[in-house]
Amino acid sequence: MRLALLLFSSSLVPKPRSPSKTLLLLPFSSAAAAAAAGAAEGMDSSASASASASASSVSLREALAEKQAAVDAQGDAVRALKARAGAGRAEIDAAVDALKALKLEAAALSRQIQSSAAAAVAGREALRQAVVNTLERRLFYIPSFKIYRGVAGLFDYGPPGCAVKSNVLAFWRQHFVLEEGMLEVDCPCVTPEVVLKASGHVDKFTDLMVKDEKTGTCYRADHLIKDFCKEKLEKDAALLPPEKAAEFQHVLAVLDDLSPEEMGAKIKEYGITAPDTKNPLSDPYPFNLMFQTSIGPSGLSPGYMRPETAQGIFVNFKDLYYYNGNKLPFAAAQIGQAFRNEISPRQGLLRVREFTLAEIEHFVDPEDKSHPKFGDVADLEFLMFPREEQLTGKSAVKKKLGEAVSKGTINNETLGYFIGRVYLFLTQLGIDKDRLRFRQHLPNEMAHYAADCWDAEIECSYGWIECVGIADRSAYDLRAHSEKSGVPLVAHEKFPEPREVEKLVITPSKKELGLAFKGNQKMVIEAFEAMKETEALEMKVALESKGEVEFHVCTLNKSVTIKKNMVSISMEKKKEHQRVFTPSVIEPSFGIGRIIYCLFEHCFYQRPSKAEDEQLNVFRFPPLVAPIKCTVFPLVKIEKFDVVAKKISKALTTAGISHIIDITGTSIGKRYARTDEIGVPLAITVDSTTSVTIRDRDSKEQIRVDIEEVASVVKEVTDGQSTWADVMWRYPTHAVSHTDEEPADEE
Amino acid sequence: MRLALLLFSSSLVPKPRSPSKTLLLLPFSSAAAAAAAGAAEGMDSSASASASASASSVSLREALAEKQAAVDAQGDAVRALKARAGAGRAEIDAAVDALKALKLEAAALSRQIQSSAAAAVAGREALRQAVVNTLERRLFYIPSFKIYRGVAGLFDYGPPGCAVKSNVLAFWRQHFVLEEGMLEVDCPCVTPEVVLKASGHVDKFTDLMVKDEKTGTCYRADHLIKDFCKEKLEKDAALLPPEKAAEFQHVLAVLDDLSPEEMGAKIKEYGITAPDTKNPLSDPYPFNLMFQTSIGPSGLSPGYMRPETAQGIFVNFKDLYYYNGNKLPFAAAQIGQAFRNEISPRQGLLRVREFTLAEIEHFVDPEDKSHPKFGDVADLEFLMFPREEQLTGKSAVKKKLGEAVSKGTINNETLGYFIGRVYLFLTQLGIDKDRLRFRQHLPNEMAHYAADCWDAEIECSYGWIECVGIADRSAYDLRAHSEKSGVPLVAHEKFPEPREVEKLVITPSKKELGLAFKGNQKMVIEAFEAMKETEALEMKVALESKGEVEFHVCTLNKSVTIKKNMVSISMEKKKEHQRVFTPSVIEPSFGIGRIIYCLFEHCFYQRPSKAEDEQLNVFRFPPLVAPIKCTVFPLVKIEKFDVVAKKISKALTTAGISHIIDITGTSIGKRYARTDEIGVPLAITVDSTTSVTIRDRDSKEQIRVDIEEVASVVKEVTDGQSTWADVMWRYPTHAVSHTDEEPADEE
Repeated sequence: MRLALLLFSSSLVPKPRSPSKTLLLLPFSSAAAAAAAGAAEGMDSSASASASASASSVSLREALAEKQAAVDAQGDAVRALKARAGAGRAEIDAAVDALKALKLEAAALSRQIQSSAAAAVAGREALRQAVVNTLERRLFYIPSFKIYRGVAGLFDYGPPGCAVKSNVLAFWRQHFVLEEGMLEVDCPCVTPEVVLKASGHVDKFTDLMVKDEKTGTCYRADHLIKDFCKEKLEKDAALLPPEKAAEFQHVLAVLDDLSPEEMGAKIKEYGITAPDTKNPLSDPYPFNLMFQTSIGPSGLSPGYMRPETAQGIFVNFKDLYYYNGNKLPFAAAQIGQAFRNEISPRQGLLRVREFTLAEIEHFVDPEDKSHPKFGDVADLEFLMFPREEQLTGKSAVKKKLGEAVSKGTINNETLGYFIGRVYLFLTQLGIDKDRLRFRQHLPNEMAHYAADCWDAEIECSYGWIECVGIADRSAYDLRAHSEKSGVPLVAHEKFPEPREVEKLVITPSKKELGLAFKGNQKMVIEAFEAMKETEALEMKVALESKGEVEFHVCTLNKSVTIKKNMVSISMEKKKEHQRVFTPSVIEPSFGIGRIIYCLFEHCFYQRPSKAEDEQLNVFRFPPLVAPIKCTVFPLVKIEKFDVVAKKISKALTTAGISHIIDITGTSIGKRYARTDEIGVPLAITVDSTTSVTIRDRDSKEQIRVDIEEVASVVKEVTDGQSTWADVMWRYPTHAVSHTDEEPADEE
Repeated sequence: MRLALLLFSSSLVPKPRSPSKTLLLLPFSSAAAAAAAGAAEGMDSSASASASASASSVSLREALAEKQAAVDAQGDAVRALKARAGAGRAEIDAAVDALKALKLEAAALSRQIQSSAAAAVAGREALRQAVVNTLERRLFYIPSFKIYRGVAGLFDYGPPGCAVKSNVLAFWRQHFVLEEGMLEVDCPCVTPEVVLKASGHVDKFTDLMVKDEKTGTCYRADHLIKDFCKEKLEKDAALLPPEKAAEFQHVLAVLDDLSPEEMGAKIKEYGITAPDTKNPLSDPYPFNLMFQTSIGPSGLSPGYMRPETAQGIFVNFKDLYYYNGNKLPFAAAQIGQAFRNEISPRQGLLRVREFTLAEIEHFVDPEDKSHPKFGDVADLEFLMFPREEQLTGKSAVKKKLGEAVSKGTINNETLGYFIGRVYLFLTQLGIDKDRLRFRQHLPNEMAHYAADCWDAEIECSYGWIECVGIADRSAYDLRAHSEKSGVPLVAHEKFPEPREVEKLVITPSKKELGLAFKGNQKMVIEAFEAMKETEALEMKVALESKGEVEFHVCTLNKSVTIKKNMVSISMEKKKEHQRVFTPSVIEPSFGIGRIIYCLFEHCFYQRPSKAEDEQLNVFRFPPLVAPIKCTVFPLVKIEKFDVVAKKISKALTTAGISHIIDITGTSIGKRYARTDEIGVPLAITVDSTTSVTIRDRDSKEQIRVDIEEVASVVKEVTDGQSTWADVMWRYPTHAVSHTDEEPADEE
């Protein structure tokens, strides 16, 4: 279930759980394994080198293997020479020298591998440390309930973090709900069991857990195996034979597909013990990740805190369809808290027990997934990482969205449209487009019913992080709730006049199927229903000619033999007045906290202080997300500047611009540094009673603006109507007298 | 605990639980009891007639009692006449006629009482039905999980409701967080037990529950008693002797203060049984209203879904104080979900199991509660219902805020400032100022530590509803968390130079107190600490002169005898460099769902259709809260109007104005009616390719505006920069050709 953590719904389902099915078919070359591992890293938020770093470490390792082979060969040659009677001293010495030289080269390569891996790790960790220190010190976030020593996986957003979050959500509403005319809903977090039983969460929303057999401390089984493999790959890189490295990379790639038994076997094989105590571990067993509670006073109505917001939309489909005038397509959206009782949360804001999701469910006729506005995004070009590239060991490539859809890489226009809109959303927020890729799910990651899934992955110091999932989930969810509730969640297409249609009718014989497959009967019937028309007709022919046929049931992960008496398949003519169908749903699902954390890393940089004796921290937030749009600094503490500052503050408030006045006597440089550190785009310094300076955070340029115009200039820039360059051109540049920032003291 | 439902924290606490203490002291006159009952209604969201309606029913009932007395007297007179030997026929007949006339008058009064009560109830219920029907039909809200037959007390906001909610919250952020420079935080809902143990919720956040002894169905004990009394008062009004009516009203008034035993006794006395089955009921017992869960996989860390957002702020006090430059006063704010596992939710959106709270904690020096911006609100004049008026049977009166503070009715400026800001917030949202009052808590409602509490109550069909609580909670919360966590949550005031101070030192002798009071020792010590300086000095004098003194300990609800050896009180001189103190907190707490429901009722009205054969529904939402700001209607379905409509739509989107295009061929009148029903302020009808009409929802007036100007005119009006009257004056009025609305068909 690890894959499923953000976009849980896309892999919860009874999907073909074929351990290592796809990836075991790959040749065991280290390059392919590394590519597969790269893909696996992408699926998860685990620490991993960037694609290029990992590629260079692969080529170094190959070079080392070659060198090692050369050393071996030369060693053999030396031995052979020595054994040969007539070999001359000089000849032997030369061969030995050559061997020594080769060994030195191998050792150098080995050191190079080790240091490049170490440098990559150290660089990532130093960056993360600098970002996280700044975030915590400036109260972007705080471990929750800190005075009680906190709770793992729970964080508070402090004032600037909270403002960033509310800006991101406001922009999400503008960009998706308002611009696309979506129907936004707001459902409770407390959810009765029946709903999550229907969705499959009660039975399948689990992670595999192991317990320290002596202390009872719980760990995620896959985490322990992953940590073990990573440590081997990173710390012992030089000593590791290439086959061994490839094996560990392979395990990382297929980890999500391992059964409890297979994970247990790996833990035993590798001798993995409890990290803190080194005690032996229990066998892995599933732990449900939902927070359970009880609704009402009787204690008889179990409920859960929702693990995603999507179900609230699905159960309202009928009303929303009616609200939309009984017309498709339409999209519903929801922003809200979701809860997952992680076994052992880690990676700061990336894997938490409570988080904000923003989800869209776009309902569409399965026979027409075109999108009228696809043209608006077709020309966008960005990094995509399709299945094909992942499986052949290539890396993500820049593609035009229009081509990706027309060539069938992306399944349909609507899915493509949302991928394009997500790209625009993330880059407008300030995500670096070179550290953003759209990765297609591999066949073994996807639910059997899913038509196609893509994750928007953002690269940060923890590796490639899945931040948005965009999945074509077909009719699965609506069907599941129709079945459980007995309320048909369907759409109608009325024909202008009745149509005579030839229809494929598949009638399973429940009796025969029951006798043959017992408990598995249901899965076989579902597989019949999932057949395409051509497949069904092929089966019909085969049954008629041979009397039986082999049939792959993916939910059983095996083929079964279907006999003629088990199913009847025929084409029948019918008159129809309307078409009744279950809509497909295309689901973009946003992990808001993850996006925000990646945004923090992408916006962060350091620059030297005036005295060049210190590195100062800056967040280059676009005005759209900046927690505070501008600051007002009276240059010195005198009455008349104070009056001006208050006047400007009032005008800013009227214009709806969030700002702070800093009247501390501190030097202006220190005040600049202080606000750079929370990413305030503009700073107004009051140094006269008629005009003031406005300073741009990143360029440190300043312009001089009349007091009456200040609020409107700030509004123009922070609303995005103008850029800094635009206003620079219009107003006189200010002589750089109070520009440079100094290290901020502790306030 | 019923009082505490919105503003739980203000009455959770170990407050003097003196059953009927205050109110039992009142004379048992029906007027006073009715006034007290009116006050009690205010505290709660129960259905109750408006103040004036209930006053008129009281005077009718008094008239009936007088009439009844007259009938009795006349009956005696007739009997006396008949018994007297010399009474003439004519005299007797006249007396009998007079008796008959009196009886007729009494019967008429009795009918009048019954019908006026019934009419009031019927009027309220008809209004509510019309509002709720419209709200549910237009998907403002939906019972959650409807296809699974729902869960009591859980509701979804559908598209228009969700938009209203997000507008209300955005305005809240602008009005409070931005304008006041508050520190907004965002904390998780999942909360570990220790936090809620410290706050008192684990032990005291309970309601009294009774069970149907046969079926096990649970009921709130106070609800059953209240329903019983109300039914007696409303349905049996005419038959009820005035003493009996007064008794029931008295019970309603003191219900919240009854102990489990007293409630059990009332249930027995009145013969109340389970409403559905008429089975006998169990004795009342407390049920904790928090949703419980377990954090992490071990099952050993109990947690709860937070019952309020305030605790997340208190536990962060230290960081927030630092963030604010170690300066007071400052306010922190939080918007988020809160959860209360109600025993038997009712009254639709007013009493639910999950709801959005918006809370402010304003931290202030207890010795200086002045507010620099109080002058901005001092001239506001609105309905206040101070303690004094409630206890003397008067009704709410219009007062100037400045006077209420200067006369001490409202405890301090900061509390007064927030009351004023809340008044502005609610009335700007669209709450009718004549159905909004600020009611002061009675002494028995308030926690012992609280300095003063006021509720903003809004009158709707369910009575006066507590929607915002504004409480001066003194230092209670910070002290509780300091004590439990061991982390001092205090503020410092550094003196420019050390000061010699004379300080009152109270040193309890734990040994003597322990011997005397055993388990109650802690409460006695706390009461010592809570003493004002004058009280302590009085005690010192008394102990020195008499050797002992009676001392009221409010948490014990009794007086105890303090002897000289139990405590030493003295004035000592000390040199101090700074003052270290626990800040007071002033807490405005907003029940967003309740405010929104009341807003729905206040904005709703009906007007006849064009043909006058039907009542059409309108929500007169101010543009600020309207879910959609305008609609675009091509007058007829032709290409060129469609093009114009799309062009306007694009301009509206760019301007950030939420809107919908309705291209259904329906008559323009029907389309107007449809959008009036969801409160869209402006409708644009495209009837030419150069200019369009804009129609105002409430006046139905129309102006003609050039296509290029449409978006900016709409923005002006919906942003609140101009009123409809302003733009009416600037643009030509449109001849009323497609004005009147018709009943909307089902879409």
